[in-house]
Amino acid sequence: MNLITRTAVLAALMASSPLTLAEVKVSDAVEYRQGIYKAVRWNFGPMGDMVKGKQKFNADEFSRRAANLAALSKMPLEGFVAGSYNGTYSGSTDALPAIEKDWETFAGIMSDFETNAAALAEAASAGDMDAIRPAFMSVAKTCKSCHDKFKD
Amino acid sequence: MNLITRTAVLAALMASSPLTLAEVKVSDAVEYRQGIYKAVRWNFGPMGDMVKGKQKFNADEFSRRAANLAALSKMPLEGFVAGSYNGTYSGSTDALPAIEKDWETFAGIMSDFETNAAALAEAASAGDMDAIRPAFMSVAKTCKSCHDKFKD
Repeated sequence: MNLITRTAVLAALMASSPLTLAEVKVSDAVEYRQGIYKAVRWNFGPMGDMVKGKQKFNADEFSRRAANLAALSKMPLEGFVAGSYNGTYSGSTDALPAIEKDWETFAGIMSDFETNAAALAEAASAGDMDAIRPAFMSVAKTCKSCHDKFKD
Repeated sequence: MNLITRTAVLAALMASSPLTLAEVKVSDAVEYRQGIYKAVRWNFGPMGDMVKGKQKFNADEFSRRAANLAALSKMPLEGFVAGSYNGTYSGSTDALPAIEKDWETFAGIMSDFETNAAALAEAASAGDMDAIRPAFMSVAKTCKSCHDKFKD
């Protein structure tokens, strides 16, 4: 290996190693939060079908899914790490850099998600669709407000 | 659209629609359970590092992750649906067909996972590493016993 090649290889290693290490961690965070959101949708879908009457209301199933959703709502925030946003992250993500720029608003909506999901789980445990419906809509609105601002 | 084209389109729709619908549902289930396991690992990794002394023990963080793990342990089972196993599923999965063949054993281990994760969360809430360590090892053993039998 001649000096120029060796220098080029060293330079490439120095440039890429920390990036590669960071990249692994960032991709873990992205896959983690995307996994949580897949589980959110998995539960929220059938709940929505029951609220809309597309699927027969099953109070036990609804309550179980609402409890899962309340637990899941606490989890995604820590997956939004530096370098994990659309435009900078090398993999696939719909998370906009606005999240980083306006973290306070984003974290506020995520906190609303947690509060509203807990209220929905509480309403669901009583099994009364008249109380469930508005609580479900509050969660749906929180999802939408975040997607409008922060999701591609 | 002429008759031949229309017939071809109809035939294609009739042939592909049920398959496509079934496929979407199975892939949703696979992505759902894989998402849950990513979240399990995301939490279990740092907990393991604290148990092994690779990372400084932080009782609050450990307890939060143990509570997340206990919630997550209740979720994956419903993602193991017909047609979602290695060899029959068209996408990527490490879940062996043995799960379907020996569902009782599989569901039993998943139930142990839930019980042991709840016990770990309980031990973690007291913040005592001497109680946490064996509870953590019980969860780790449950993971391993399932992977040995049912994961490629």
